[in-house]
Amino acid sequence: MKLDIVILAAGKGSRMKSAFSKVLHKVGGVPMVRRVLNTASSLSEAKLHLIVGHQGEQVEASCQDFSTNVVWQDSPQGTGDALRRVAPFLEEGGATLTLYGDVPLISSETLEKMTALSTANTLVLLTISLDNPTGYGRIVRDGSGKVTAIVEQKDASAEQLKIQEVNTGILLAPNDHLQTWLASLNNNNAQGEYYLTDVIEMAARDGVDIVTVNPLSEAEVAGVNDRVQLAALERELQSQQAIALMQNGATLLDPSRIDVRGELVTGNDVIIDINCIFEGKVVLGDGVEIGPNCHLKNCVVGDNTVIKNNTLIEDSQVGESCDIGPFARLRPGTYLSNNAKIGNFVETKKAHIGEGSKVSHLSYIGDTQMGANVNVGAGTITCNYDGVNKHLTQVADNVFIGSNSSLVAPVSIAEGATIAAGSTITKAVGENQLAFARARQTHKDNWPRPTKKS
Amino acid sequence: MKLDIVILAAGKGSRMKSAFSKVLHKVGGVPMVRRVLNTASSLSEAKLHLIVGHQGEQVEASCQDFSTNVVWQDSPQGTGDALRRVAPFLEEGGATLTLYGDVPLISSETLEKMTALSTANTLVLLTISLDNPTGYGRIVRDGSGKVTAIVEQKDASAEQLKIQEVNTGILLAPNDHLQTWLASLNNNNAQGEYYLTDVIEMAARDGVDIVTVNPLSEAEVAGVNDRVQLAALERELQSQQAIALMQNGATLLDPSRIDVRGELVTGNDVIIDINCIFEGKVVLGDGVEIGPNCHLKNCVVGDNTVIKNNTLIEDSQVGESCDIGPFARLRPGTYLSNNAKIGNFVETKKAHIGEGSKVSHLSYIGDTQMGANVNVGAGTITCNYDGVNKHLTQVADNVFIGSNSSLVAPVSIAEGATIAAGSTITKAVGENQLAFARARQTHKDNWPRPTKKS
Amino acid sequence: MKLDIVILAAGKGSRMKSAFSKVLHKVGGVPMVRRVLNTASSLSEAKLHLIVGHQGEQVEASCQDFSTNVVWQDSPQGTGDALRRVAPFLEEGGATLTLYGDVPLISSETLEKMTALSTANTLVLLTISLDNPTGYGRIVRDGSGKVTAIVEQKDASAEQLKIQEVNTGILLAPNDHLQTWLASLNNNNAQGEYYLTDVIEMAARDGVDIVTVNPLSEAEVAGVNDRVQLAALERELQSQQAIALMQNGATLLDPSRIDVRGELVTGNDVIIDINCIFEGKVVLGDGVEIGPNCHLKNCVVGDNTVIKNNTLIEDSQVGESCDIGPFARLRPGTYLSNNAKIGNFVETKKAHIGEGSKVSHLSYIGDTQMGANVNVGAGTITCNYDGVNKHLTQVADNVFIGSNSSLVAPVSIAEGATIAAGSTITKAVGENQLAFARARQTHKDNWPRPTKKS
Repeated sequence: MKLDIVILAAGKGSRMKSAFSKVLHKVGGVPMVRRVLNTASSLSEAKLHLIVGHQGEQVEASCQDFSTNVVWQDSPQGTGDALRRVAPFLEEGGATLTLYGDVPLISSETLEKMTALSTANTLVLLTISLDNPTGYGRIVRDGSGKVTAIVEQKDASAEQLKIQEVNTGILLAPNDHLQTWLASLNNNNAQGEYYLTDVIEMAARDGVDIVTVNPLSEAEVAGVNDRVQLAALERELQSQQAIALMQNGATLLDPSRIDVRGELVTGNDVIIDINCIFEGKVVLGDGVEIGPNCHLKNCVVGDNTVIKNNTLIEDSQVGESCDIGPFARLRPGTYLSNNAKIGNFVETKKAHIGEGSKVSHLSYIGDTQMGANVNVGAGTITCNYDGVNKHLTQVADNVFIGSNSSLVAPVSIAEGATIAAGSTITKAVGENQLAFARARQTHKDNWPRPTKKS
Repeated sequence: MKLDIVILAAGKGSRMKSAFSKVLHKVGGVPMVRRVLNTASSLSEAKLHLIVGHQGEQVEASCQDFSTNVVWQDSPQGTGDALRRVAPFLEEGGATLTLYGDVPLISSETLEKMTALSTANTLVLLTISLDNPTGYGRIVRDGSGKVTAIVEQKDASAEQLKIQEVNTGILLAPNDHLQTWLASLNNNNAQGEYYLTDVIEMAARDGVDIVTVNPLSEAEVAGVNDRVQLAALERELQSQQAIALMQNGATLLDPSRIDVRGELVTGNDVIIDINCIFEGKVVLGDGVEIGPNCHLKNCVVGDNTVIKNNTLIEDSQVGESCDIGPFARLRPGTYLSNNAKIGNFVETKKAHIGEGSKVSHLSYIGDTQMGANVNVGAGTITCNYDGVNKHLTQVADNVFIGSNSSLVAPVSIAEGATIAAGSTITKAVGENQLAFARARQTHKDNWPRPTKKS
Repeated sequence: MKLDIVILAAGKGSRMKSAFSKVLHKVGGVPMVRRVLNTASSLSEAKLHLIVGHQGEQVEASCQDFSTNVVWQDSPQGTGDALRRVAPFLEEGGATLTLYGDVPLISSETLEKMTALSTANTLVLLTISLDNPTGYGRIVRDGSGKVTAIVEQKDASAEQLKIQEVNTGILLAPNDHLQTWLASLNNNNAQGEYYLTDVIEMAARDGVDIVTVNPLSEAEVAGVNDRVQLAALERELQSQQAIALMQNGATLLDPSRIDVRGELVTGNDVIIDINCIFEGKVVLGDGVEIGPNCHLKNCVVGDNTVIKNNTLIEDSQVGESCDIGPFARLRPGTYLSNNAKIGNFVETKKAHIGEGSKVSHLSYIGDTQMGANVNVGAGTITCNYDGVNKHLTQVADNVFIGSNSSLVAPVSIAEGATIAAGSTITKAVGENQLAFARARQTHKDNWPRPTKKS
């Protein structure tokens, strides 16, 4: 059966108090509407329709890498109105699943359970039983358990108010019926809006089977209306992800203090300490240890590498058995070979560090090609920027760079060379040469110390 | 009606195991007794009385900016004893509200509900219904719902023990009656103390109306006896503050990992990542993003500025669209103009950084007046201290300072000047000059590397 | 009565998905099996037997500092099988307590309650009442309350399934009976394993008294089968430790954000901010304040020292009233005298810093003996490493080291000497001498700035 998926993303979300459309606010690092699109895309051969309205250009732009039919709902008049606008595009003989851009955690497992029940004469409704159903539309069933209606809170009898099973708003309807039902919707209500929910009564009336499916958790159908709810779903997602990581064999020192905003792939026996953040795609090899407060974004870390406290890595590749941090910052384009060491208060950028080389303290290594077994002394700076251009520093294997040296790029240091501490190197250094550029040390006796000025 | 507010702050709080008075321990960065004084001060025209005893000098000193009548209770003999000591100062024809220095989260909303009910013949009692009332004095009401007595746990019948409504100890009594009641208090009990609670029975006996008010939450009336309870109230306050921030339009990545110890004002669409701390008064403009683990104290941050991981800012002012951190430390007296950048491992202090200027790495900029569009290379140090005096460094617009430079203050660099990398600058540099102070680079061939000593 | 304690640590724990034996995974920084051994060792005159199997060499090695009788269970066939293997070593006339290497939080208080009840004719069983006992063996008692059997979930009647008291697996049995019972165990069950639990039925049959003891909390008897459970026990332990610290007089800004992986001893009025980690043995003196995100390992901190945000200390000793951090890293062998200051972006290693000396910014001080009242300027580096050897830097009292200096070790600076900013010092400096090693500053007018290359 052909599947149309309609994603409602036109609302203003005024309780967010934001200059941005509600559906662009992020959960787990991803705009909510993109989460829904990702999940919807995972269903086979679905055609996606995105209903936009408030700040629709922003929403459209943020989703342009998805193949969607964007439909504008300029003056939103309810969920039924949204479906009426998309109606002309729905596949004849197919079925339409309605999702919401502000209900971001709906799972593909649940949607697949729904589509598995879809027929030309079946309406599939996602419902959930709540401890406190107050405010939600109750699912009314007859004696045989068949759904006969949804009764809104304000219209419910005392008996009906006790019903705990409620409507989630997510439903899957056969298109040929749906077209008829949408055409008959009216807006004779206090808000003057068209409600998609009204089709359920029509389905019952038309003898269409109404079957129900339940989500795995309440979080799947939770909507976001303000930032308190946004934060609650963020925490729910993080908790789910943390459990999955642990079940997969990673040790988390505190599952309530890890944030994965994207995809984290862990090898065997990975240990992640408190308060780490992972963004984009991060792959950690076997035996990797991540210390507290680290923040890794789009990077691959080789087996048995240890990353210590407060290390930041972005768009970089790290080899095996490296020793990084604490207080290290690997900026984009850093490539560490195996057994390399980046120590405290060290920043790297567009830097290739060869096998076994060490940059242990207080250094900036940028635009640099460094060989193996190089020792970079504390306080070494690659002067890669002349104010307008960036230049390359090349350091061959087995070089020893004394502390507090400045390497003024473009410059190259050949194999086995030594740079004396405190030198500013502006010219190429040859193989096995000692280069020094420092003044003679002189002394003045009985030097009078400055005195306190009033 | 004239309002006297008595704040009891004489207790020792021995379960705190502290050298400091219990009421000086902080919740949300503010000593508990000061929180109560702040709330009490918000009521219109209230006269504040502070009862001190244990470490009373400390308590008095810490509250001296409030206008209070400090009354000493040298050898505390109960809450009734405290009120008896303050009795001579209470306004004739007024009413007296009794608060506690170790019940820090009482709200002005609740107190206003109480004062609104106050008359010369009404005693207003703050009560709360607890799931588990064990240990508290139960509120006994007659058939018409009128309060007739408070029964202590040990004196309560089986039926009375089932009462969930309990006394909070906070009450508002008409002064003319109160004077009589206080005079009749006795200490015929196991502890030999005078109990303020006894006035309730007297009020019932004297035909004074006893009306009750409930707080908004249990936390409002929770007292602190040990550091476990102190931490619980700290978390409660932080949670309340986090919710208020989110409702006001700030995104908090984790509402249970933010600490506001003072006042945080957020513009539109502010995003605050995990584990941030805000102290004193912090104002964040529209679109400001605060990365994880930042700590901001007494500062203003302009619109659209991005502050990255692990940045510390204190007593500073930051312009719009600045780019700060990670691992930056702005110490007191830092002033960043718009579009300025302070990068990793950079410390500033008493430093004015002009528009668009950049200090990107591993630098110390102190006692400095820097113009616009200056580029400060990695490892640059302002040598502002001669061991006894601090001196000023002046850097004009469009200056380029090479990496690893030392600027020995007092010194000035004129507009458009360039400092060669690795230079120690001790004399003024003129407009568009290149200044360099470094030794010629020389080489020695076949330099023998040191060998391992045994 | 002689006490044998058998600790079962032979299981594979395949749900851990680990290359390491389950019992070697850590809780509170200590391998689970070592926690159990520590607790067992606290019982007087107990003889410890450690049953190993899966990765037994690793387990044995990690416990080799305990005096244990290691017994191999090569092809594990259940808890009864384990006990049968250790049977030949059990003391005649004694009693045997069975513990589990993956039940790490069992307390010595609970075990002492058990041993206090032990006689030659008593079997002591540790049981617990659970809200949801599903899956556990229920404790069946007769009308007089005497334990008569343990019924497994699958064998229980509807009535028995309602029993909330369950078997924890921890029991203490008199050896002479136990030998007989172990000999009669059979493995006629689906798994083909010998179950220790079967001895309870035998004890009842033999007229041995079966008495029960309850643990203080569920966590004491919780086992670890996967990393979700490992994390849950980690949090439980951390919560217990946090409460104990607060009850002992330490202020924790957030008790759910502190990690103690070892032993933390706090003086009076210690304040610990969020997200701190303590490893090994850490002793904090009176009035010590620890800022957020600090990580201290094996160190002693003197009274009234303040440690600011993001400070790391390892294997070091810190005096009184020191001022450390933020962003400081004290590596092993650091010794700070009273009133010393280590500021931001400073690393120390094998360094003795004299009283009142200050290393305030961006420095590396390694292999250094520094006297009192020394001022070390920003950017100072001790060049302690020549590529193969480490050398000592000696700095006497009252020395002033200008910023961006390099001290090339071995080198000594005598009392009262001054080092000019930007100098590289390679030779000894005498008392009260000024040493400088820098080039003359020269200028070139109208220096053309580089232009952007295409």
